[in-house]
Formats: sequence, C-alpha cells, structure tokens
Amino acid sequence: MKEIKVGIIGFGTVGSGTAEVLRCQAENLRRKTGLNITLARVADRSAQSLPPEFAQCPLSNKAEDVLNDPAIDIVVELIGGIEPARTLVLGAIARGKHVVTANKALMSTAGREILAAAAEAGVTVGMEASVAGGIPVIKTLKEGMTANTINSIMGILNGTANYILSRMTDERLPFAEVLREAQDKGYAEADPSFDIDGIDTAHKLAILIALAYGINIQLKDIHVEGISRIEPIDIVYARQFGYRIKLLAISINHGDHMEARVHPTMVPENHMLASVNGAYNAVNFNGDMAGDILLYGQGAGKMPTGSAVAADIVDIARDIAAGAINRVPGLAFVEDNIIKGRITPMEQLRGAYYFRMSVMDEPGVLANIAGILGNNEISIESVIQQKRQEKGPVPVVIRTHQATEKSVVQAMNEIDKLDICAKTPVIIRILE
Amino acid sequence: MKEIKVGIIGFGTVGSGTAEVLRCQAENLRRKTGLNITLARVADRSAQSLPPEFAQCPLSNKAEDVLNDPAIDIVVELIGGIEPARTLVLGAIARGKHVVTANKALMSTAGREILAAAAEAGVTVGMEASVAGGIPVIKTLKEGMTANTINSIMGILNGTANYILSRMTDERLPFAEVLREAQDKGYAEADPSFDIDGIDTAHKLAILIALAYGINIQLKDIHVEGISRIEPIDIVYARQFGYRIKLLAISINHGDHMEARVHPTMVPENHMLASVNGAYNAVNFNGDMAGDILLYGQGAGKMPTGSAVAADIVDIARDIAAGAINRVPGLAFVEDNIIKGRITPMEQLRGAYYFRMSVMDEPGVLANIAGILGNNEISIESVIQQKRQEKGPVPVVIRTHQATEKSVVQAMNEIDKLDICAKTPVIIRILE
Repeated sequence: MKEIKVGIIGFGTVGSGTAEVLRCQAENLRRKTGLNITLARVADRSAQSLPPEFAQCPLSNKAEDVLNDPAIDIVVELIGGIEPARTLVLGAIARGKHVVTANKALMSTAGREILAAAAEAGVTVGMEASVAGGIPVIKTLKEGMTANTINSIMGILNGTANYILSRMTDERLPFAEVLREAQDKGYAEADPSFDIDGIDTAHKLAILIALAYGINIQLKDIHVEGISRIEPIDIVYARQFGYRIKLLAISINHGDHMEARVHPTMVPENHMLASVNGAYNAVNFNGDMAGDILLYGQGAGKMPTGSAVAADIVDIARDIAAGAINRVPGLAFVEDNIIKGRITPMEQLRGAYYFRMSVMDEPGVLANIAGILGNNEISIESVIQQKRQEKGPVPVVIRTHQATEKSVVQAMNEIDKLDICAKTPVIIRILE
Repeated sequence: MKEIKVGIIGFGTVGSGTAEVLRCQAENLRRKTGLNITLARVADRSAQSLPPEFAQCPLSNKAEDVLNDPAIDIVVELIGGIEPARTLVLGAIARGKHVVTANKALMSTAGREILAAAAEAGVTVGMEASVAGGIPVIKTLKEGMTANTINSIMGILNGTANYILSRMTDERLPFAEVLREAQDKGYAEADPSFDIDGIDTAHKLAILIALAYGINIQLKDIHVEGISRIEPIDIVYARQFGYRIKLLAISINHGDHMEARVHPTMVPENHMLASVNGAYNAVNFNGDMAGDILLYGQGAGKMPTGSAVAADIVDIARDIAAGAINRVPGLAFVEDNIIKGRITPMEQLRGAYYFRMSVMDEPGVLANIAGILGNNEISIESVIQQKRQEKGPVPVVIRTHQATEKSVVQAMNEIDKLDICAKTPVIIRILE
C-alpha cells in the first residue's frame, strides 16, 4: 500500500487534533483511499514530548526539521500568525512539498504570494480549515458551486461572537457579563478583541471573497465593526421587529464592484442564518445557477478543525496517488485570470437601518431628530420612544426605509452633536 | 486551450438546464479551469430541434449517437428511470467515456454494478445531482467529511413533500387541498405518489447510506412511510409540544448495523432541520470528528440541478486535464472494501412517539388505552383528550417516553381492534 507521509509544524490544539484525526481514522482512510497516510514528524517550538500514542513519531523543536525531511510529502502548518509561518510555508513549497494550513491571518494577507509560488512549483496548498473550521466551505466554493457566478456571501464566521450574541439573546444578559462568562468557560480568549471586534471574521471573509470572485482583496478593504456596543435592549427591539442580531460577514457582487463588510446585522427570524446559535458557524452562498446554498457546523475546535485539515491532506494524497498536479487552482481561478477587483465604497451602500439614540426626555426631541433624518433623505418606517422610568436619558429607536450609508453617517453625526443626545447613537444594518 | 466535449442524453428539464449552465458559465469555467467545456451533441427521443442558442449543436433522436461519437469525453445521462438508462450508462463506460447522471432510481438500484464497471474501465461516474439537487451533499460525504466515520444522516430530501407539509403548517390546510394546489402550480406531479409516499426520499437515502458507510444497501431494506395520513390537527399538536413535522430520511450508524428509514418525524423546533421550509432540502451529517454538518439549498429545479451536473462535469474535466484516473472511488470507498452491511430491523428501534387516536367519547376509554400501553411497557409522557364538539369520535393524543418500535406496533394493533377506536391510530416518531 502506498504511503503518504505528513509532517506537522505546531502541536497546539489544532496540531494535536489533526494528529489524532489521522491516527483514529487511519483504517477508515485506508478503506476509502487505498493509501497509508501517516504522521512522520512533528515540530513544535516548546513541546518536550508527544502523547504516548504518538511516541514512535520523531519530534523536533525546529520547524526546519520537517521541511528538510525528504520523506515528507505534505507539510501541515499550524503555528498561526504571519511570520514565521509565511517563511516556513514558502520554504516547504520551494522544497517541492505540498502544504496544508489552517492559518487565516496568513492566507488572507499573503495568500496570493503563497498560492502563486505553489502553482509555479506544481504543489498544492490546502486551506479548508482556515474558514469555518470543520465545514467544507472552501471545497463548496471551489468545486461544488464552481459552475456558478457567486452573487453573494453571508456568513456567521466567528463562534465566540455568535456565542456571546446568542447568550445575550437567550438570557438577556449584558455584553460584558456574557463575555466574562465565556472567558471563564474557555470559549473566549483572554484578549477577545480579534473575535468580538470582527477582525477574525474579516480575515475569513477576505479568503472567501478571493475564492468566490477571483479577485485580489486586501484586509484593509473590508469595513469592520464589532459587537461590543450591542446592548440587551437592542436585542429586545430586534425581536419585536422580527429579527435576530448576528455578527455577519457580507459580500454582495455588483459585477464591477463587490461589497465587503463585517458588522452586527439584524437578520429576519425566518432566515436560516437567524437559527444559527451558540458557537456554531454558517455561510450562505448565493449562486446564479444553484440559488442559495447554506452550510452549517462547528467553526472551531480541536477535532472539527482537525477534520478539515485531514480532508485537505486526503485531497492532496489522492492527487499524489493519481499523479495529478495543479488539479484545482489554489485561488479557485487560474492564476492569470485573477483580476484586481473593486470594493464598493461603504458610503454607496443602500439598505434599511435600525438606530438607537439616548436622548434627554424634552419636548421637541423627536421633531428635532426626525427633521435631521428628513433633511438627509432618510424616511422612517417606525419609531419607538420609551417612557422615562427614572432620571436621565431615554432610548428612541427608529427603523428606516431604504437609505444610503452616506446619508446615514451624515445624519448620525448631526444627531450626535445635539445637546439632547447623551450617547453616540447605535446603528445596526438590517438584512432584507 | 484544451477542449472537453460533453454529450447529453435526454433534453428535458435537467438536460436543458445543464446545457444552459454550460453555455452561460462557459467564460466563468474557462477562468477557473483553463479548459473549454463544450456541449458537442444532444440526443433526445422526441426533440425535433434545439433552442436557437444551441443551434450549432448536433441533435439526434438516438442515444447511441452520443455513445458512438468518438469526440465525446463525458456522457451525461438525464433520461431517468432504470432502463434504458442502465444499458446506456454501461455502454458509455464500455466505450471508455466518463458519465454524469442525476438518476437516483438508477444509482440506488444499479449503482454498485455501474460504479464497479467504471472503476474497472478507469472512468468516473458523477452523481451529485441524484441527491438534493444543487446542494453538494455527495462531495461533502466523499471528500469534505472523508476523515470522519459518519454517525448519522438526517435529511429533508423531497421538496414536494416539504412544500406540502410547510403549507399545511403555515395555512392550516388539509393535505388533499395543499396537494391539489401544489399540482396546479406545477410543484407536484400529476401522480405524486413517488414524492408523498417517501419512495423518492428512500432512493436518495439509499445512495447516501452507501457512500457514508461503504456498505451495500438495497431499496427494500429501507422502511418507508409517506405523509398522506398527516392531518392539520397533528401539526397543531406538534407545535404545542414544540415540534415541526417533516418527512425525514434517517440513518443512524450503530457500528455493526445501521438504521435506514423514511417517515414523518416530529423535529424539535430549535433544530436547524425544523427551519427548512417550502421546497428546500437539507441534510445533516454527523461525523465523529467534525460533529454536525448541515447543508441546505434547492433540492430540485432546472438550474440548481444543472449546476450540480455541471460541477460533476468540471470535476471530471479537471481529472482529464490532470491525467488523474479513479482519483476518488465512485462509492466513496475502494471497491474491495465495500462490505455487506446490516440494516437495523425496525422492531429494534427505540425512541419517543406521538399517537393520535380517534375514539368514541365513552367513559373508561382512556383507561382502556393506557392499560394497553402499560401492558406493552410504553410509558406516557402526556395525554391530551379533546372535548367532544359534535357527534362522532374525538381525538386522543399521547406522547410517550422512550419505547421500542416492536411494543408500539403491538400496542397500536391492540388499540386498533378496540370497538371504541374509530380509525387506525396515526403514529409519528419524535426526533430527540
């Protein structure tokens, strides 16, 4: 039986998960592929030893030992971050080795360079695990929906943020309290900013956009807002209006330009994405031929992410066994056909909006606000003005008809400057 | 640019949809594959001409003309049914041509024979479109989740049945009326039995089971019940208990035996499958590594199904261009590793049940029924006995704790024989 040898760099959560998947699925994979896919070497900067079930596998503290092992066919990079991951991946490619990575920071910033080098060298770089953990979203884009022009991408791509919003919704608890609880349970990092500020989601959206449209995109092109300003009261109003609040990655394809944005969004409660709760992820691709296709599952975690890494390893093993080179382009499109792409400026966005303002409860306040909205050509669908229960500002909640982002930003700046406005208004875009 | 030539047999809804996908995605596919994938010949028993946009494509009335055209690389069989489809597909394989089919009846009955012949001949048979239309469920099983042992399959695989149940739920209309409406709108066939009796769903489940577990399964091994006995009152009670009624395909992997059944099921309303409405399909695979992965989308229709057929064509085109043969086994497992498999006898099933009985409103009725259930070791979780509003039988609705199918069948037979029982009880299994 043909042997395919795998080397893992980085034996943390995903690295040990991948090793475990390869170990416990070995017989299953032999039945499916007719190949022996084995872990041949592990490199980890700090590990002193491997768990007993991997005792026969050589361990080094230098990543180069994996790159320089001539027996290794596939190098699995699981150290995260941009450097030294980038140098190691390029080094593996230069040595004619295939690469699998779960590194979204790396692939969303240096992906183009890495995949071009791989195409040149005739090796494959698999990155399924970099977006949505165990869910085969990249395979679906590159293969399952290949005969489609992608009209839109909408995704819940960060389990921590979705967990926090779900808990806030179910338990009516404030953001800070739920975050603390999530940190205590290990669902959120000590520094949670990557997750809750939308940066992690933006990394993943950048990868999906590149693969969906065959364009070059840079992280800075993506408009990003996090969830830390959402309050339980927003969730209550959202429910009243028939919505759930989700941190969505959104891209809409307008042909000669594409939207690229990450922000809290009111999702209609009968939309499948509204039913995605807890730490789960989901992505909806709309294709011009297939229509909506949604994929749902665990977007993180040791074994689900290990499952996606292993799927890439098996894909490459099958290519090796079949003698196939560059079978599917790394970026879904043949390198020469990747175009510059233009991202829609945020101010050109059109949609419905939810505003929550904290205002002093004085006569004429609503007339004042409505006047500013009217002057900016924003028409109001409904207003809820809460009665004052104690001293201090009261919330005014407004849902608009279709308006442009430009006029909304202008109007909110004007309202924010009013003396009666106690806090900067909260703005949530509504998905229609 | 390398040319890949496709011949289509059967120019009905899916055939013309596939031709349209290849035509309007030609430039998109060139950008992605670097290949020219063109429609080179169409055979249709009755077509006199092709639409003007395909005027340059030769049309014949004999399927053999496609098989015998030496220029054709991939034969697409879209005539449906078992014969002559089986003979044509085997004929294409014998001539060294790759095959793509959307034919679930064929692949669920003669799939083993066809895929063994293809492996022998070194050609590929793609069948993504045979299950769940445009949704890449087969690719997910064979590739995305390959490094998993599949623990369970649960799917809404028939859009017509799901449309009818959704309309009954939303509009509280009786089955017969919704069916008539669906037929008028073209959503249901004049003879709808395949869809509403669960046969179509069973064909698709048979294919998924074979691919998930690497076992041989025959249609007759699958327990099948349809939706025609569901009444609006069942839907109302389901809602009260927190469930939606769906026609589910279910298989649970017990290691040395696997469940295989299709029947109306009460799905908890917070389960993603409960949110699948209208003509949409969805499948949830539980893998031992990745956990739950659900795929959702359009399970039928000209363009979605055409999209799935085209995805298979592109997969094969990429194999041809890369010189890869038998890269992924047709049945997901290498032919020699496919085992007999044993299907769990229905009587061994365990679960919770919903019963609705129509009984005469006489004293002691409930005691009588409860006695029979108790004697059969079925314990009751809740009972709803409706007051009589007019003359005639009244419904008694019972939800049970865990019970075995064997005892349920026995108890229902006993109850059915009682003089006070006006109609055969309705039994709906509850998903937990």
